[in-house]
Amino acid sequence: MLRIIFLLSLLFALSTASVQDFCVANLKRAETPAGYQCIRPIHVKAKDFVFSGLGTPGNTTNIISAAVTPGFVAQFPALNGLGLSTARLDLAPKGVIPMHTHPGASEVLFVLDGAITAGFVSSANDVYVQTLKPGQVMVFPQGLLHFQINAGKSAAAAFVTFSSASPGLQILDFALFANNLPTELVTGTTFLDPAVVKKLKGVLGGTG
Amino acid sequence: MLRIIFLLSLLFALSTASVQDFCVANLKRAETPAGYQCIRPIHVKAKDFVFSGLGTPGNTTNIISAAVTPGFVAQFPALNGLGLSTARLDLAPKGVIPMHTHPGASEVLFVLDGAITAGFVSSANDVYVQTLKPGQVMVFPQGLLHFQINAGKSAAAAFVTFSSASPGLQILDFALFANNLPTELVTGTTFLDPAVVKKLKGVLGGTG
Amino acid sequence: MLRIIFLLSLLFALSTASVQDFCVANLKRAETPAGYQCIRPIHVKAKDFVFSGLGTPGNTTNIISAAVTPGFVAQFPALNGLGLSTARLDLAPKGVIPMHTHPGASEVLFVLDGAITAGFVSSANDVYVQTLKPGQVMVFPQGLLHFQINAGKSAAAAFVTFSSASPGLQILDFALFANNLPTELVTGTTFLDPAVVKKLKGVLGGTG
Amino acid sequence: MLRIIFLLSLLFALSTASVQDFCVANLKRAETPAGYQCIRPIHVKAKDFVFSGLGTPGNTTNIISAAVTPGFVAQFPALNGLGLSTARLDLAPKGVIPMHTHPGASEVLFVLDGAITAGFVSSANDVYVQTLKPGQVMVFPQGLLHFQINAGKSAAAAFVTFSSASPGLQILDFALFANNLPTELVTGTTFLDPAVVKKLKGVLGGTG
Amino acid sequence: MLRIIFLLSLLFALSTASVQDFCVANLKRAETPAGYQCIRPIHVKAKDFVFSGLGTPGNTTNIISAAVTPGFVAQFPALNGLGLSTARLDLAPKGVIPMHTHPGASEVLFVLDGAITAGFVSSANDVYVQTLKPGQVMVFPQGLLHFQINAGKSAAAAFVTFSSASPGLQILDFALFANNLPTELVTGTTFLDPAVVKKLKGVLGGTG
Amino acid sequence: MLRIIFLLSLLFALSTASVQDFCVANLKRAETPAGYQCIRPIHVKAKDFVFSGLGTPGNTTNIISAAVTPGFVAQFPALNGLGLSTARLDLAPKGVIPMHTHPGASEVLFVLDGAITAGFVSSANDVYVQTLKPGQVMVFPQGLLHFQINAGKSAAAAFVTFSSASPGLQILDFALFANNLPTELVTGTTFLDPAVVKKLKGVLGGTG
Repeated sequence: MLRIIFLLSLLFALSTASVQDFCVANLKRAETPAGYQCIRPIHVKAKDFVFSGLGTPGNTTNIISAAVTPGFVAQFPALNGLGLSTARLDLAPKGVIPMHTHPGASEVLFVLDGAITAGFVSSANDVYVQTLKPGQVMVFPQGLLHFQINAGKSAAAAFVTFSSASPGLQILDFALFANNLPTELVTGTTFLDPAVVKKLKGVLGGTG
Repeated sequence: MLRIIFLLSLLFALSTASVQDFCVANLKRAETPAGYQCIRPIHVKAKDFVFSGLGTPGNTTNIISAAVTPGFVAQFPALNGLGLSTARLDLAPKGVIPMHTHPGASEVLFVLDGAITAGFVSSANDVYVQTLKPGQVMVFPQGLLHFQINAGKSAAAAFVTFSSASPGLQILDFALFANNLPTELVTGTTFLDPAVVKKLKGVLGGTG
Repeated sequence: MLRIIFLLSLLFALSTASVQDFCVANLKRAETPAGYQCIRPIHVKAKDFVFSGLGTPGNTTNIISAAVTPGFVAQFPALNGLGLSTARLDLAPKGVIPMHTHPGASEVLFVLDGAITAGFVSSANDVYVQTLKPGQVMVFPQGLLHFQINAGKSAAAAFVTFSSASPGLQILDFALFANNLPTELVTGTTFLDPAVVKKLKGVLGGTG
Repeated sequence: MLRIIFLLSLLFALSTASVQDFCVANLKRAETPAGYQCIRPIHVKAKDFVFSGLGTPGNTTNIISAAVTPGFVAQFPALNGLGLSTARLDLAPKGVIPMHTHPGASEVLFVLDGAITAGFVSSANDVYVQTLKPGQVMVFPQGLLHFQINAGKSAAAAFVTFSSASPGLQILDFALFANNLPTELVTGTTFLDPAVVKKLKGVLGGTG
Repeated sequence: MLRIIFLLSLLFALSTASVQDFCVANLKRAETPAGYQCIRPIHVKAKDFVFSGLGTPGNTTNIISAAVTPGFVAQFPALNGLGLSTARLDLAPKGVIPMHTHPGASEVLFVLDGAITAGFVSSANDVYVQTLKPGQVMVFPQGLLHFQINAGKSAAAAFVTFSSASPGLQILDFALFANNLPTELVTGTTFLDPAVVKKLKGVLGGTG
Repeated sequence: MLRIIFLLSLLFALSTASVQDFCVANLKRAETPAGYQCIRPIHVKAKDFVFSGLGTPGNTTNIISAAVTPGFVAQFPALNGLGLSTARLDLAPKGVIPMHTHPGASEVLFVLDGAITAGFVSSANDVYVQTLKPGQVMVFPQGLLHFQINAGKSAAAAFVTFSSASPGLQILDFALFANNLPTELVTGTTFLDPAVVKKLKGVLGGTG
């Protein structure tokens, strides 16, 4: 018994010194540049380290016939500070994840089902496109424009991981056509005709 | 045509300025603390960004009835410098990925098939164990002891990602019993009896 | 004299211990994820820390009536490892720096002359546009689509700095229309009509 | 209309996942080692990304005939977390920015007007001095002693950028002579005579 | 006097721009992934930068005949954000710091007194053991299993430093045997016999 | 035997995946911004992780009656990439480590013997001075001017650690007076009189 007491006192001394193995996000408090403030470890439970939101396909009944289901820090607070986040892609036949970037992270994509044609364009303007089958992994370097398209006749799905708990996601068409960025600025900075811009603003709900 | 020439000269000027979207590893050259030296972009091809080594189950005919198939920078050089790496876990019925750490990375695990009981122990000595089904994700914070066990009656598999291109992998039993660390040092630093240590050294091929 | 000898020997001992205040890039050797290998300090001269390429306006006789003159690590090797790089923007009347991103850096822009309307779009699809006059500074967060337009009737110019020696530069129109990315993939991932894509590929020299 | 609804629901799902493109500082709340806590994105406006404090020369009617006008995170909260900050230097004829360091950042200086002699000293005690004209850029590696002097007969000015939102600024003479560091400690650690120290403490307002 | 006033106003302007040379932890507020929130500089005193807890030997009257006295950020708040922490090891004759890891830091150990046999095991399962005398330094790379044993007949002591303000500390035996990790999971993931596990759980206060 | 063979093949597969627990510097090859290139792990020996250069006092027979013995990456190559370095300070009675900075690292100092008065000055020009006795630890934040003075009548010594393998070391008097920085630039940037500068250049071997 004495041994246990000695040991436990040692253990107590040591464990008070051991801080921040993890920092589960308190989403109700202000963020910092390094992520959210931490919930106290005493309130953290085993199930906080598990995220169940990627187990079922997202709803692909939309004009892109595709869905992105995020498991970022906002959905999975245990990722806070650990430099990783997750998502699931679902692509119905003819489905497309449109051209987009993640401003703050690189991405690895693991194909779960179906065939996916994926690609990115580098700063040097080179094109890297591949068609992937289940079990193949593709990596997309940080911040570059990339896309995924269903390359088969059945539904396709992928599990993706990012090198940041908050990778960001900027979808090109939404950035250009689904907000109030004036048509004049869109045409001026993209060489697109006003008619093209206005049509897409109409489809995507943009104004201006 | 003139416009094209003007534009291309602009493009050329810009793209020579745009360096290192990626840094595919030259595994034949010396490493640095930040990773391998880069292959020249001109020699990089689209297929370099794809890794096919995780598409089939690893061989689980071994005493742990399990396999870890790595897709780290050594296998998938395009990961170099991007802060991510991958692996596949396969667990036959009763299979176990023994207690281990990744000294340089946190990990997210996505269950592909079967049921997996996974857990980790924190610096404060708290235990976080959960049983996962397909589609569930669990995160393991950097450097902590953790394990995965097949919790079902059929084969289980998972795709895992790490927050470093070189996460490292230290399997506890191998570190203690599968090398020439003298029995006296193992017993002295673990409270295990010499007979226990010698028996496991025998099973795992250790000496001393 | 003795004092000097003592001191110099001390100095010698200390300075051999003091490494890497700077790491001027050796552009002829392979890069690493952290930048180029260093030239030996003994070969570094005071003038290596000065870059003169931004002192004169770039040539704006082109279809965008604008020029970006980079002072990245490739042009200014002393930046290697210091987490900074530079550029100069010149915009003739009606000039535009088209929609683009820097995948690896945030940017601050200091207006030297003229009036510039600049803006960026966030991941949340919000638009942040401002018209700037000389002496004003605007910051563009990492990886987000942004642009600069001459908002006046005279030439405008700006000095910009990035939070990386290799910020990268991806110009949207070039990424979409000035390479061999197949028209089918462009239309599929952007909602643009094939005729629009083919027309812009024609103007910008793209194929496929 | 249905399409828009589908799209907007997709957009909504995605944008709630996209966090922290930027983190405009809440200067009223406690700092962290990574910077200030963020203002909620909903309260951030386009003008927050613009800083107008560097557009006019600082007041150089002082004994150094020079002024440093900072645009650090304390003045320009949008810089928080972006790894950049700014300042303006103004040097009347004979003006001097005295020997100083930035403990937490490297610096690039772009000459706006006039001629400036600038230099730094390395850990190896080597001296790197250059005289710069408008449009030239000089880089000063992190933490090293450096200075700027008006090298011409007219006013000179420069725009400077740092590789941190909080670069710090330690002016040598102020550190030695403008506080209560005891004369005995100053002389003991600098080899300066007490009379020299006391005289400069007198000029600069130091005590002790 | 005028000079002083001019200077002081300059000084005031500059020093309000100079933020976060240090960030002494406010241990009462929530942590973030980058550490604790800072106490306001005005409340920081010179003695906050000094820690006196390592000056006397820890109590080694316990079953390991050893003590680890931490000087981490929790004990020495001035370390917050500075990437360093400290500890003292005391080893009575036959004392042992059992096999352990620091999940978040590398370590340097400086022997103060006595002889210490120290070692670590790499991911590649190689063993690096050395016996150290006073004044010798050994470095233990991040996250790897390591230990220290008194190699002499008198008390030994060491001063250690870590490359993080919160290095963490996971003691192998405590992680396996001093908590409620079920015996079945311990045996399943370590190859140890249930009897061995139950015995050590008994000694170390574990349950399950 | 079969079990061993299975295990060893597993082990082999895993260990080839586990890279860079450490990166012992190859001092003969070019540096990179992240440190030196690594020696191949197969050539690394246990003794490479031990540095014996700090076990004996440095020679204090010089005008500062003090010695700094570095154990930086140049002397102790195993530190490469691990974010730590070491040094030993020896101060004979009246010995002084003159005012200096480490441009790239914070420092912790552990007093081994004697009494040491140590201090630093912040960017805000505040002075933090304390007198330390054996076993006390003081931390000096990155890049700030600081000093150590023997505060007793006997020899004093300290073991110091830095938060970088290459912290740099800039000694104020050497930077100002022991090189070819022209007297005119020294006086112009420090307010010191030419006579004072020339005298110290004479003592310290400077020219110009």
